[in-house]
Amino acid sequence: VSHSQTSFFAGIDLGGTNVATAIGDANGNIVAHERQLTGAPDGHAAVIGRIASSVERLASRAGIRLDAVGMGVPGLVDIAAGETRFLPNLSGNWKDVPLASCLSERLGCPVHLLNDARAAALGEAIFGLGRGVRTMLIYTLGTGVGGGIVIDGRLHMGPLGTAGEIGHVCVQADGPWCSCGSRGCLETFVSGPALAGEGVRLMLSGNAPALKRLCGGDMNRVSPEILGEAAREGDVGVQAAIERAGSLLGLAASGQVLALHPDLIILSGGVAGLTGMLTPPMRRAIQERVRMFPVDRIRVERSSLGEMAGVLGAIAVARQGGAMPAERVHP
Amino acid sequence: VSHSQTSFFAGIDLGGTNVATAIGDANGNIVAHERQLTGAPDGHAAVIGRIASSVERLASRAGIRLDAVGMGVPGLVDIAAGETRFLPNLSGNWKDVPLASCLSERLGCPVHLLNDARAAALGEAIFGLGRGVRTMLIYTLGTGVGGGIVIDGRLHMGPLGTAGEIGHVCVQADGPWCSCGSRGCLETFVSGPALAGEGVRLMLSGNAPALKRLCGGDMNRVSPEILGEAAREGDVGVQAAIERAGSLLGLAASGQVLALHPDLIILSGGVAGLTGMLTPPMRRAIQERVRMFPVDRIRVERSSLGEMAGVLGAIAVARQGGAMPAERVHP
Repeated sequence: VSHSQTSFFAGIDLGGTNVATAIGDANGNIVAHERQLTGAPDGHAAVIGRIASSVERLASRAGIRLDAVGMGVPGLVDIAAGETRFLPNLSGNWKDVPLASCLSERLGCPVHLLNDARAAALGEAIFGLGRGVRTMLIYTLGTGVGGGIVIDGRLHMGPLGTAGEIGHVCVQADGPWCSCGSRGCLETFVSGPALAGEGVRLMLSGNAPALKRLCGGDMNRVSPEILGEAAREGDVGVQAAIERAGSLLGLAASGQVLALHPDLIILSGGVAGLTGMLTPPMRRAIQERVRMFPVDRIRVERSSLGEMAGVLGAIAVARQGGAMPAERVHP
Repeated sequence: VSHSQTSFFAGIDLGGTNVATAIGDANGNIVAHERQLTGAPDGHAAVIGRIASSVERLASRAGIRLDAVGMGVPGLVDIAAGETRFLPNLSGNWKDVPLASCLSERLGCPVHLLNDARAAALGEAIFGLGRGVRTMLIYTLGTGVGGGIVIDGRLHMGPLGTAGEIGHVCVQADGPWCSCGSRGCLETFVSGPALAGEGVRLMLSGNAPALKRLCGGDMNRVSPEILGEAAREGDVGVQAAIERAGSLLGLAASGQVLALHPDLIILSGGVAGLTGMLTPPMRRAIQERVRMFPVDRIRVERSSLGEMAGVLGAIAVARQGGAMPAERVHP
């Protein structure tokens, strides 16, 4: 097979736990992909080395040469400088790491950074549920809670590429301290760690018998999937915890609904496995808080691309030579 | 003077207390304007009659024929139908009033409606502080608290022209009930009535001696101006009330800053007379709540157009033949 006429791009999604790497063409057809542990505690040099090896491995296996690489990073990045700025949910020192130039030197092609949730938003808008949708929000519910906003067919980036941080909207003025430095952020209630912590509290206080059984009493095994199972098996405390998370998701979303009146809200990330349980209280909270105009046509759905949204968005950024403010996604 | 080559438009700003009417050319040069009491309790037919008379009076005085009329309305309007839907801060029955066709019949030219705060946003974006600004928010702090959002040079309207309702973002889950039907909306804390109510509470509880003196003990005279004066004269309770309003304005704004990273936030309406006292706590709250990226370059300013923002935005809408979603304001 000759690929000489086709351009290929790598998309990387750097997460707190895993790094996903994929190679695809300009139409988002993935020819190879893999996933490995991030291993952030090993330091950023080791992480960058592993990512570069993964990209090289995939490219050589597919027998192609890369035109460019796009990379989603969990936090604040300086898009123009290609450097990380503030990655609150990644252990180790990630301040001002010249990620783009390090990878670019090793891989021999341009590397473009953007925030991981904005990458997922772009992936959904171009290749997923967001195709043809005018205004769309995404909440990426993982170790952290990220966000992205597509307005009238454009990914909204703001002057620094930092707009869209809807996971750090305050939903409780005196709520728990957040890794970002503020308190009561949506993230402190609906992230994977937040739900796991609530599960542990319920188990330890004797209020989650099914959860305890499903985990074999091991706190380390509490996950969104197991919480969902415990809720289905009748743990009232776990049901209430998921209901509360959905309700607070709706409270945060109501602010953005009032501001932007989106057509679609997408949930993605590990916690999005609970979408079926999260959306009824989420919709109720939106209905309760947005009385100024009808909201029943706003769709709330789980990502159709799943964990591929981020790498597909990164491939889109590679394809267009970098993430730009007010990205035009579709006409 | 012959006006035969020039097009003229009327802009109307219908408020809970006053109606402003103005006539101007396509460049926003106002040739005549006036202001009268709305008198909403007289019923919508009487109000519409007074507005039409005002427009006719101004046009005949200026000796011009109108090409089109734009009108800002305090609440939810159906732009396509030209009808009012939900005007929570206007007394009397304003549900489904065919405002555009009634006025159009009487005035003999097309009449286009939009929400009053969106009209003010458009006025500021085209003729005021928002000229050349990419992303801008406006809070109209009056009887109600409206809002408007210009994103990358476009007035963001949403599918129904209802986006931008940032005065109804919840800042306190169990806060006071709002006229919109939700509770704890920003409006319940920072509107003119909210501040007046707090002033009355302080006076009655003996905690606002300067305010009491300035009002001559008459509750009816409590206004944003008098509250500002009482604060300057040393009423600690009044100072704290204004500080709290600014802080909650910042809490609400922080959600929109996280989502949109605006370059400029404009305060307008009667309460904006307190901008100098509101902005320090507002900025502190934004700094406190937005830790994900630097916010020090975001400007917070009082409207430069004052009460003319709304009529100028309405004239802009008349000029372009109606308010459209994703209005392009400047390139």
